[in-house]
Amino acid sequence: MPILNDCAILLERLRARAPLVHHLTNYVTVNDCANVTLAIGGSPIMATAIEEAGAIARISAAVVINIGTLNRDSVESMLAAGKSANAHGVPVVFDPVGAGASTLRSETTARILAEVRLAVIRGNISEIRAAGGLTAHSKGVDAGSDDAETDAGEIARRLAAKAGCVVAVTGPVDAISDGQRTLHVANGRPELSKISGTGCMCTSLVGAFVGTEPGLPLAAAAAALLCMGIAGEIAFADAGARGLGSYRQAILDAISRMDAETLMRMGRIREAEN
Amino acid sequence: MPILNDCAILLERLRARAPLVHHLTNYVTVNDCANVTLAIGGSPIMATAIEEAGAIARISAAVVINIGTLNRDSVESMLAAGKSANAHGVPVVFDPVGAGASTLRSETTARILAEVRLAVIRGNISEIRAAGGLTAHSKGVDAGSDDAETDAGEIARRLAAKAGCVVAVTGPVDAISDGQRTLHVANGRPELSKISGTGCMCTSLVGAFVGTEPGLPLAAAAAALLCMGIAGEIAFADAGARGLGSYRQAILDAISRMDAETLMRMGRIREAEN
Amino acid sequence: MPILNDCAILLERLRARAPLVHHLTNYVTVNDCANVTLAIGGSPIMATAIEEAGAIARISAAVVINIGTLNRDSVESMLAAGKSANAHGVPVVFDPVGAGASTLRSETTARILAEVRLAVIRGNISEIRAAGGLTAHSKGVDAGSDDAETDAGEIARRLAAKAGCVVAVTGPVDAISDGQRTLHVANGRPELSKISGTGCMCTSLVGAFVGTEPGLPLAAAAAALLCMGIAGEIAFADAGARGLGSYRQAILDAISRMDAETLMRMGRIREAEN
Repeated sequence: MPILNDCAILLERLRARAPLVHHLTNYVTVNDCANVTLAIGGSPIMATAIEEAGAIARISAAVVINIGTLNRDSVESMLAAGKSANAHGVPVVFDPVGAGASTLRSETTARILAEVRLAVIRGNISEIRAAGGLTAHSKGVDAGSDDAETDAGEIARRLAAKAGCVVAVTGPVDAISDGQRTLHVANGRPELSKISGTGCMCTSLVGAFVGTEPGLPLAAAAAALLCMGIAGEIAFADAGARGLGSYRQAILDAISRMDAETLMRMGRIREAEN
Repeated sequence: MPILNDCAILLERLRARAPLVHHLTNYVTVNDCANVTLAIGGSPIMATAIEEAGAIARISAAVVINIGTLNRDSVESMLAAGKSANAHGVPVVFDPVGAGASTLRSETTARILAEVRLAVIRGNISEIRAAGGLTAHSKGVDAGSDDAETDAGEIARRLAAKAGCVVAVTGPVDAISDGQRTLHVANGRPELSKISGTGCMCTSLVGAFVGTEPGLPLAAAAAALLCMGIAGEIAFADAGARGLGSYRQAILDAISRMDAETLMRMGRIREAEN
Repeated sequence: MPILNDCAILLERLRARAPLVHHLTNYVTVNDCANVTLAIGGSPIMATAIEEAGAIARISAAVVINIGTLNRDSVESMLAAGKSANAHGVPVVFDPVGAGASTLRSETTARILAEVRLAVIRGNISEIRAAGGLTAHSKGVDAGSDDAETDAGEIARRLAAKAGCVVAVTGPVDAISDGQRTLHVANGRPELSKISGTGCMCTSLVGAFVGTEPGLPLAAAAAALLCMGIAGEIAFADAGARGLGSYRQAILDAISRMDAETLMRMGRIREAEN
């Protein structure tokens, strides 16, 4: 599979280049984001004051905006960082945490989509649907079925086409689309959703990969989702039976040991036919 | 012991219902609160902006207010979330971290007690004493003695009667009172106090349990304290000798594996005679 | 080596006294700072509201100021806490995270140096250089060589003399100077830089040690760096092969088990000749 090979090459480049990934993120999982960025081979920085958010974005390889615990001040810093990144050719990754759950989150998501040119958007299906102003299909969705997978792909494709960027929908099977090509990643474990921050960490990984190769956002997003999914599988085999504390730590272990060979051997990615 | 049986049933219901627990909490242990809520079977959400705190409280099963790192803005959000919860029948749990240590904390505690109808207050004995405006008994308190236990029970009972809610005092032996019945939980390990956030996590567990059965706050608080105490014992046996990093992780492991059988077998709870 | 003996004695005193260490720090690694303070035997408190920062500083054994995620409000609280500490004889430790990376950080660093009397400054070489307004030597620096070690010592010595406090520069070989005596600590592992927060934790350890013996800031800083470096070595031997998640946990394990005997046996510290 050529895309899997691309992802493996991206991982090797990431580890060689150690991209600086600027995070404007929530205070719940920020430490996990920092550690996962280090574990995959990047260098995290968190600078959220409005006085410096733009200056730090400018010197970074990628900017990650995550609205997990947004407030009025942090939203302004996110916009300042995003615009500075846009002005200096730095790719921006956006995680619309909780879009649809409150007016503040939906409005902030719309504002970021309108004011910042994004490289990748990463969220679960309800967040991506809310971010795109998309409603559920009238045919109904049965989660876990083939329809659910098709639906995630379709939701990703539609927001990608609308927003002009790559969209990654994580779920039982992930979908990644640039509006034309749509990829599905089938790695992962349901237990990942029992660890706080696995979604945010996934977005940080996208930042590290897209900061390595800004010209390849589709492959970068796919590589990030493959790494998290495969790490979830390895960690579950190693430590799942001991409980969620051990599982959480084993995920970081597996990310830090991830290499091209493991990605090629364990990655389950396919391109959807149009 | 009927109360122990009630707690075991509550745990099974919690795992079946996965209550959404809205946290307005401190940035030191917020990640631990999120992970412990997931580990016991709940679903955590942290939304602190004043624009959304009330809306998120309304759709939650319980609201946890923890003043560990309060500031002027966060206190307003706490009050907004608490009042919204009150208006919509959502139980509110309060952790008066550091009450008595500064004027800000004492005044904020008094304000929350005055403006929000609480289901459960959880703190250590000095925090609960400060929250209740209660002074130490003239007879003197020898920590660790029977007097200390009696004293914790008496402090809990008095604040419970005054505030009209359940009060849980954690310590060498925990005391939980609704003003009429007073329970003592004798599980736990002294080493729990060497891990940051075990108190906050205990309060999050109360939130998850009371969000499962809002009509049973006394049993909910008891179930939470039993889970934390038993997990502290299991984790110490498993990992205590390796050091505090391993112990911390093993606590989360034990919480995630906690079940009704373990609660029934290991729980040490008794009701105080009046 | 007398200084190593002093450090070992300090560790025993720290564990006996359990100093209260007030932190005004960043939200990325604040939980690590709390847990490392507990693991070494201290008692952490984080109170950042301007209404209470000074009052809590007054009752603490040491104050740690860390500008990792500073903003306008938090800087005012840092200054208030620092001045209150100065007024009440409480030692202040400063970590100029990212000094030189943005105007905000450089200006804040200068302001804290001007307005607060510091006991110890702890940073990496570029942060300490920026804090001191010092430029690189014209002779050039080859990291890892003897020149690099000499350079760290010289940078530490110059800022120590200028600021009138102890300065600790962490790196491949740490340098600690009070402007007259300069010590080098050769413990540690390069993998420590792959774990978020090891620098911040080091500063928290300095706080715990200097809060134990405010009159011995040079030995306190040396003891802290020895503990972190030795813990990094023990943890790497125990868990390094498993990955960064396990390594991170093993560091906290090793800190919590650190004792005078281990310090004396593994510590590699020497005094530079003038």
